Formats: sequence, C-alpha cells, structure tokens
Amino acid sequence: MKNQVEPGPDRALASAHRVVIVGGGFAGLYAAKRLGKAPLALTLIDRRNFHLFQPLLYQVATGGLSPGEIASPLRVVLRGHRNTEVLLAEVVDFDIANRRVILADGERPYDDLVISTGATHFYFGHDEWEPLAPGLKTVEDATEIRRRILLAYEEAEREPDPARRHAWLTFVIVGGGPTGVELAGALGEIANDTLRHDFRHINPAESRILLIEGEDRVLPSFAPDLSHKAERQLIALGVRPRLSARVTAIDAGGVTVEAAGRTEHIATRTVLWAAGVRASSLGRKLAERAGAPLDRAGRVLVQPDLSVPGHPEIHVIGDLASVTQDGKVLPGVAPVAMQQGRYVADLLVRKLRGQAMRPFRYFDKGSLATIGRNRAVAQFGRLHVSGFPAWFLWVFVHLMYLVEFENRLLVFVEWVYNYITRNRGARLITNNQD
Amino acid sequence: MKNQVEPGPDRALASAHRVVIVGGGFAGLYAAKRLGKAPLALTLIDRRNFHLFQPLLYQVATGGLSPGEIASPLRVVLRGHRNTEVLLAEVVDFDIANRRVILADGERPYDDLVISTGATHFYFGHDEWEPLAPGLKTVEDATEIRRRILLAYEEAEREPDPARRHAWLTFVIVGGGPTGVELAGALGEIANDTLRHDFRHINPAESRILLIEGEDRVLPSFAPDLSHKAERQLIALGVRPRLSARVTAIDAGGVTVEAAGRTEHIATRTVLWAAGVRASSLGRKLAERAGAPLDRAGRVLVQPDLSVPGHPEIHVIGDLASVTQDGKVLPGVAPVAMQQGRYVADLLVRKLRGQAMRPFRYFDKGSLATIGRNRAVAQFGRLHVSGFPAWFLWVFVHLMYLVEFENRLLVFVEWVYNYITRNRGARLITNNQD
Repeated sequence: MKNQVEPGPDRALASAHRVVIVGGGFAGLYAAKRLGKAPLALTLIDRRNFHLFQPLLYQVATGGLSPGEIASPLRVVLRGHRNTEVLLAEVVDFDIANRRVILADGERPYDDLVISTGATHFYFGHDEWEPLAPGLKTVEDATEIRRRILLAYEEAEREPDPARRHAWLTFVIVGGGPTGVELAGALGEIANDTLRHDFRHINPAESRILLIEGEDRVLPSFAPDLSHKAERQLIALGVRPRLSARVTAIDAGGVTVEAAGRTEHIATRTVLWAAGVRASSLGRKLAERAGAPLDRAGRVLVQPDLSVPGHPEIHVIGDLASVTQDGKVLPGVAPVAMQQGRYVADLLVRKLRGQAMRPFRYFDKGSLATIGRNRAVAQFGRLHVSGFPAWFLWVFVHLMYLVEFENRLLVFVEWVYNYITRNRGARLITNNQD
Repeated sequence: MKNQVEPGPDRALASAHRVVIVGGGFAGLYAAKRLGKAPLALTLIDRRNFHLFQPLLYQVATGGLSPGEIASPLRVVLRGHRNTEVLLAEVVDFDIANRRVILADGERPYDDLVISTGATHFYFGHDEWEPLAPGLKTVEDATEIRRRILLAYEEAEREPDPARRHAWLTFVIVGGGPTGVELAGALGEIANDTLRHDFRHINPAESRILLIEGEDRVLPSFAPDLSHKAERQLIALGVRPRLSARVTAIDAGGVTVEAAGRTEHIATRTVLWAAGVRASSLGRKLAERAGAPLDRAGRVLVQPDLSVPGHPEIHVIGDLASVTQDGKVLPGVAPVAMQQGRYVADLLVRKLRGQAMRPFRYFDKGSLATIGRNRAVAQFGRLHVSGFPAWFLWVFVHLMYLVEFENRLLVFVEWVYNYITRNRGARLITNNQD
C-alpha cells in the first residue's frame, strides 16, 4: 500500500499522436509490441484480457494443455511499454469523420487506426449448424469441444445399445486444413493411446474418426506429396479421410455427406467444424463508414501499404485483411499476421517522421502442419519434410514463438511429460449444462 | 484400431460383492484407491470426471494455477484397478430396501454403499446472497471468482468517478477460516505484486481488502498465538481483518457489516464467500430413506465405524459425516476425509473375511494454513511455526499429496516460476456474460 501511483502514459505524450489498435491477436499485438518505444500514445483495445496463442488451441480442445498455458494477459505482455494503454472493451462501430472508435460503452479518439479483429467461423449460410458443430476460435470453443469429446466416451461407456454406442464413438471433423488435420490426429491419439485403459465396457480404439474435406486431398495449401504423406499419417492414427466430399446437412443425429454423387448419412453425436471462416463483422462496418471494399469472405481489400483505400489513417491487418501477392491471396495464418503487424508499426513511425514506406510484402518462411506425436509435414519452398523431422521442427518453432510471451517453460514441461507418458493432463469436463 | 477390447471388471467378480462409492473427493477416492486389489466389484460414481485437489483451488481463483493442473481424471487415477469401474452419473436418491442407488438416468445395485458427497456453500438462510458472493467449491466457482477479481481491476481502470472506482477496488472476503485467509492473502499479493505495473490510471496497491470474521481472531481452529501471527502476516500484505464482525446484508452495491453494535456499509463490487458450508443434499435423502440422524449442518451422525445407525451396509465419510472425537466434531478437511476413506476400505475388506474392525480414530498430524509467499502458520500439537518455515512445510506437504496423482511436476514448475517472477500465469477472464 506504500507504492506510488504508477504513472500513466508519459505526460509529454498526452498531446502526442494517438494510435489505436483494435484486436490483440498476432497482427495487433505484434504491431503494439513494435511500437513500444515509439513517440506516440498507443491504445490497444480488445474484448478479452489475454492474447491467445491460437496455433496451440487444438491442444486445449483435446485435453493436452490448459487454457492458461496458451494465453498471455495483454497487460503483462505490454506492461513495460510506458506509451501504451490496454483497454478491455468492445469496438462496435467507427466515427470516421471525427476519427473515433465507438465502444459498446464509450468512445476513443485516434489519429491513426489499426484494425485487426480477425475472423470467425463461417457455416456457408447454415448458421443453424453452429450449435451442432462447434468451431475452434476461442478458449470457450476449446473447452466446449473438449467437453463434447470426453462426454461422448462417457456416454458410450454407459450405452447398452450397439448402434447408439457406435454413434457416440463416431467423430466427424469437417474441413481438412491444418486445424481439421490437427483435431483429427489428436482424436486418433486420444482413441488409441490416451484413453486406452480408461473404460470397462468400450474400447476407445474402436472409435471412428472421419475427416471430411471438399478438395481431393487434405492440407490443400501444401504440395500434393505432403498432402498424401499427411493422409498416410492420419490413417496410421485411425483417422479416415473422406476427400472430395461435401457436408449437406447436420442435425442432432448425424451428418449427411455427398461425395461422387452419392449421399451418405453418418450417425454421430460429435461434429467439429474446421471448414469456413468469415471476416470479423467490423469489416462490414468499415465498408459502410469508410467505403472499404470487401472480398467475398468479408475481408477488407487493402492498399499495398495495408491501408483502406482513401483512408491513409486506417490500416487493416491480419485475417481481416485481404492481400494479394504474386496472384494469390495471402492465407490467414499467424506468420502473415505478425509480419503485417510489424510492417504497420514501422509505417506509422516513418509516417510521423514524414518518410514513405515500401509496400507490404510477405516473406514466406515455410509452412508446417502437425498431425500427432512424431507426425507432421513441413514445406520450405522446394524442400519437403515429413514424419519425425517435421514434427520436431514444428515443436521447436512453436516453442520459439511462445518464448516471446511467458508460457514457454510450462508448455515445454507439459509436452515432455505428455510425450513420455502419452498422457493428456487437462481432461476436464467443465461447464456442464446441468 | 487393432487393440483388443479392454476386459471389464474380472468375470470372476461379476457375481462378487458389489461396493458402490458415491463421490470422488478425498474420502471417496482414497477409499477407492485402497480397494483396488480387493476381491470385490467396485463402482465409483461421480458427477464430474475428475478429482479436484481442493486445497489448491484458491490458487485457480486467484490466477496462479490452471484448473487442469489441480484436477485428475478419475479414470486415470483408477485405471490400473481391474476390479473398479468409474461411472459419470448423478446420484439423486436411494432405494435402501432393494439396495440400489438411484441415478438421474438409471440405477445401480450395491451390497455395500459408501457415501462421500461432501459439502456445499451455506449462506445462513440467505440463499439470495449466492449470486452476489460466490463461494469456492468447484472449478467453475474458481474461474468465476477469478473473472470477478480481474474484471474489477479492469472496470476500476476505466472508471473516472473516484467513489465508484474505490468500490471496484474494494474486495470483501466473508469468513476468516483457512479458505478466507488464503483468498485474502492471494488478493493482497495480486494488488501489491502481480498487477503492480499493469495499469495506467489506477494503482492496484490502493486496493482495500477486507476479511470479515465472526470470531475475535482469524483461523479460529488454530491456537490463538498462530491466529495473531496470521493476522500480522495478512496486514503486511495489505489485508484488513475485521474481527467479531457479522455480515447482515449483501446487495449489488456492497456489504453491510455489524460489529460491536455498530453497523457499517462497505461499498464494494466484489464479495467472496468463505463462511458457511452445508452438507450435501444426499444427507437429507439418507435421513428420509434410512432414518439417518443429522446434525445442524445436515451432516450424518455416524456410528463409531462410520456406518449409518441400523444400516451396517451404508457408510458415510468425508465432509458429509459428523464424527465426534474427544468431545469435538472433526473438521471438514482433507486429512480427515483421506483417513476415513482408508478406514472404510479396510473395514469392507475385513467384513468380507468375517473380521471385525476397531472404531475409526482420526490421527491429527497437524494443521497448516498458508497466507502468501513465505507466509503461513503451522500447528503440530504444542509446536507452533509461522512465516517461511511454515510456508515451506505447506508447499512440501501439498506437493507430496499431489504426487499421489499426476500433476506434481507441473504445479511444481509453475510455483517455482511464479515464485521467481512474482507472476501469475493463469489470469484469464473467461465465460464473460456477453
């Protein structure tokens, strides 16, 4: 109680250039981190009080990690930045003419605005599927998926009817991109390793895990040879990829899939959604208020410097931005978001000095996707790696990025522990309906 | 997918003596663990799929640990016991005549029944206080308390009105027993250490943390000299104990406290309840169905062998049992529950062999209560310890008990990390209303 009041942003900055960043994901947080010593007054606004390390969220959904282990409080990450203020609030609109962001309960003025509110699930016009097939974007999504997976085994253990038991032991993952592959692989490990000795009336290894993908191979963003290696690794874990297949209906009893002109109904009680994403609704607000052009997924078509056309004071970065480079739209992945965050930070500093900035260009360091223990694929230009070396690389890269926050040590220990024991420590069914 | 179906409880046991344990807390789980090799068919029934290490739950509520780090899946703990089945289900009633427990969705026969469903919060007839002043019993309670504490600071940071800001920065803990003291101490550390550099408009060290206790000292179950030492350690952390004080009203604006004939209204937005507990409602069912006598708190007054009078086939253990020893009712703490669990396990085995069992007797190894970093009190008969040695003992004892489950390594790492950095890694605001 003897401490002095922590001074706010330097007083000299009170009249300084005001930068507001909306969204503390990879794009927004990396911009904020880069601006920590810049001569401006920075405000980072987020609905949540923490940054989520999304690439590991599937491990929370499958009981390998706890939410606290992949989340870093934004205030902790930015606490050393004296020019920075973190604001827990929801941005609902923009007053472009007066340069203000409108909060659910107030407003904030800005001189430069950076919007990085990302993307959410998209059910291709079937919003009624959402409660039946949760997607994986938030901590609550992850604990809900974890609850459903673990409860399915509990229900199967108690179910005397073979057909119903079979439905409880059937898991359908819609979408064969990196998230779908990670979820399917983790489910395969849960069925074959983690739960092996846990039940008395069922054999978890008899689970049926189906991975439904519209293209003719999983991981379509990778080279075909890696897709095929990933498929073989999935099959070794007991996952059955259903390729060139399309989900046409989801209800409480199961999923209807269309493939090669044939329609099949799969009886299942657990459907996970890893297929479509749609840009955050703030993209539409930007279109209305600032005339920002949007692409079909609702992303803002930004200028080469990531600004909104006609509004050099507004930048959009991360999954909410649509950037075409060498004829292809950049994917919504963490490395793109981080590089865009750093780019905009540098641009804002140069702008203050009256200097110009080269257009944004994404430097692709390579792609990694993990499938399970010792199983992954990696693509670095023409160099393709799979199996243990790719998996080891994946672990190394993810730990290195976690280093930048505070959870590295703990995740590392949990991984080593899980690796040795083949256990998953965080298998909690919480927030039951009852 | 090549594994054989895991055999259920040994076939030879199908016609064996059926023991059902209801509740996987310390009492029920220690009984189950002890019976793992006994020649009987054991079923452990719990509503949750995990055992919760309750003595560390306050660390989840205050952001020091993640729920997964203090919870062990019951199936994992008991997976090696071939005679044991875990059932995720809710017991709602008993059919004593036909020796069946009635589940929310089924029933289970038993030859011997052990009930250990513990206790829940009790608001002294003011159930309307529950949403205003959450208690700390479940994982959801802990994450809700964590949410309220962290949100209070966020709201204070944004609140321009000094009086309202003061109310957000005021925390009232009702009840000065071990849980109240732990929560108050942790709040003191959060205010003075953890959040020290996190805000720009408030100084967390100006938080007001009030600990309200009806007796004239905190930790009334300890010797007076240790109570006074605990008070001094709390005050050093910025906690203000209000002794001989009684809460007469709680509403959204604050708490009304009566002390020495004077009534005071404390404006606060965060009230935590650590005062009363009431036995699980299954105690009343036992009274109705089996004529079990109850004490004022709803606990079952058991025989010297922990059985229900007139029903040698039903035993009640843990916080649901009321056992008087040397003129005092045994406290509802983990060591009592564990010893009762082991006792009943031994009794059941001896009974199968036609052997008698001595009455239960609790062996008091001593009491520990922690207040914060390097701060605790410990009482071993006439030996009283406080400060760092007591704290070190507390850490040692709790890690030793965790060893019996699976989380020791991780909690240890997290503690070392938090100790060195004075950080709390699990500061997540989750499950917001919005």
